[in-house]
Amino acid sequence: MILLVTDPSVGWQARTSVGGAPGRPIAARAWNDGRMAAPKARPAGQVGRPGYDLDSLLAVAVAVFNQRGYDGTSMEHLASKLGISKSSIYHHVPGKAELLRLSVDRALDALFAVTEEPETTTGPAIDRLEHMVRRSVAVLVEQLPYVTLLLRIRGNTTVERRALARRRELDHFVGQLVQQAANEGSVRPDVDPALTSRLIFGTVNSLIEWYRPSRDLTPVELADTVVKVTFDGLRSMPKT
Amino acid sequence: MILLVTDPSVGWQARTSVGGAPGRPIAARAWNDGRMAAPKARPAGQVGRPGYDLDSLLAVAVAVFNQRGYDGTSMEHLASKLGISKSSIYHHVPGKAELLRLSVDRALDALFAVTEEPETTTGPAIDRLEHMVRRSVAVLVEQLPYVTLLLRIRGNTTVERRALARRRELDHFVGQLVQQAANEGSVRPDVDPALTSRLIFGTVNSLIEWYRPSRDLTPVELADTVVKVTFDGLRSMPKT
Repeated sequence: MILLVTDPSVGWQARTSVGGAPGRPIAARAWNDGRMAAPKARPAGQVGRPGYDLDSLLAVAVAVFNQRGYDGTSMEHLASKLGISKSSIYHHVPGKAELLRLSVDRALDALFAVTEEPETTTGPAIDRLEHMVRRSVAVLVEQLPYVTLLLRIRGNTTVERRALARRRELDHFVGQLVQQAANEGSVRPDVDPALTSRLIFGTVNSLIEWYRPSRDLTPVELADTVVKVTFDGLRSMPKT
Repeated sequence: MILLVTDPSVGWQARTSVGGAPGRPIAARAWNDGRMAAPKARPAGQVGRPGYDLDSLLAVAVAVFNQRGYDGTSMEHLASKLGISKSSIYHHVPGKAELLRLSVDRALDALFAVTEEPETTTGPAIDRLEHMVRRSVAVLVEQLPYVTLLLRIRGNTTVERRALARRRELDHFVGQLVQQAANEGSVRPDVDPALTSRLIFGTVNSLIEWYRPSRDLTPVELADTVVKVTFDGLRSMPKT
């Protein structure tokens, strides 16, 4: 299910060193309160310059992209925020497009991984849909800055257009799941499955605008509530 | 209920000439397909230069703000898109901040007007809430470019912060309505009213990302569906 997209315009294939590391708290922290990730000591055997590794560099880049917008961010802005030279950034990536690609792929890879979980692939469609919604909320929280960036891109560049294509593939997957649940009689028949699917993910995606993890409302409680309200409605008694 | 905010930093009070004109199709058209509003002939008795009046100028400005972002838009960009000189724009407004204020106030005034409608102020709270949701969807569709701009501002300037304060006042109004419906026993008791309120408006606000009026899904059908799914859930049978 994971798309392996290769972009002829991008010579560097640093993606695999980042894609397999979902939910790093350092990224969420850098985005949540505006503090930047501290440069890491170089682990034994790591290739590259001391200072930032690709992961910590990415955590700062995604924070700057979210703050200034991708179009409004230059390599100078990134270098200044990181406190290093532009050439130190070029040591890791050929340019800001690659930083964008790595960032949105982190979010997309985590979301596509959910589509392959056993609870998403077996059982009644309505239960698989519920699992998909619950886990999407979890990914959104774990990868908050990366998902936020993904949801804000507009398709002005090749990297953005490819990310949007992968998003559409996810939408299609969920749309199929809703359709299957409708065929099984477990989704209300008076609403078009494609529209239902858009409304569900409208609700889930809107969480980036306000939710920040806290003890008052944990990610699990949040996911439970989203599932309750989207599946059974806010009304206390079913309408008769 | 409409806030009358006066900003000492803004000398021009052109707002009243714009605030009372919700739903102008010219604005939606300019935003929907990228075509700009054509300059209007000067009506008899209109004060100002021939060419754009404030309304048609605003329709173009909001489209450019939505496309480039407010921060990324200069008076030069606006003049170039309008095909007129910067001084012609200054004839209408003292600067781009005033164009932003007029744009977001148009959306906010229309939303606040809903809070004063009889169906929002009398009857069981759950019905008032339903009316509020239904009419908010309608306002979002009628004022699509203006609501889109409102939902994207981040609070970097005085105008933006005041708009965010008015948005919070709306959120508070809806939160109170949900609380009242909960007190009346018509909202599910296992979800916090403030959270319910956020989820509802997360769903409604997410419509700006994809909905464009069409015969396949009219604004009224859209509002009906949003109400069905948010109030009664997507599941065909209530969970027992």
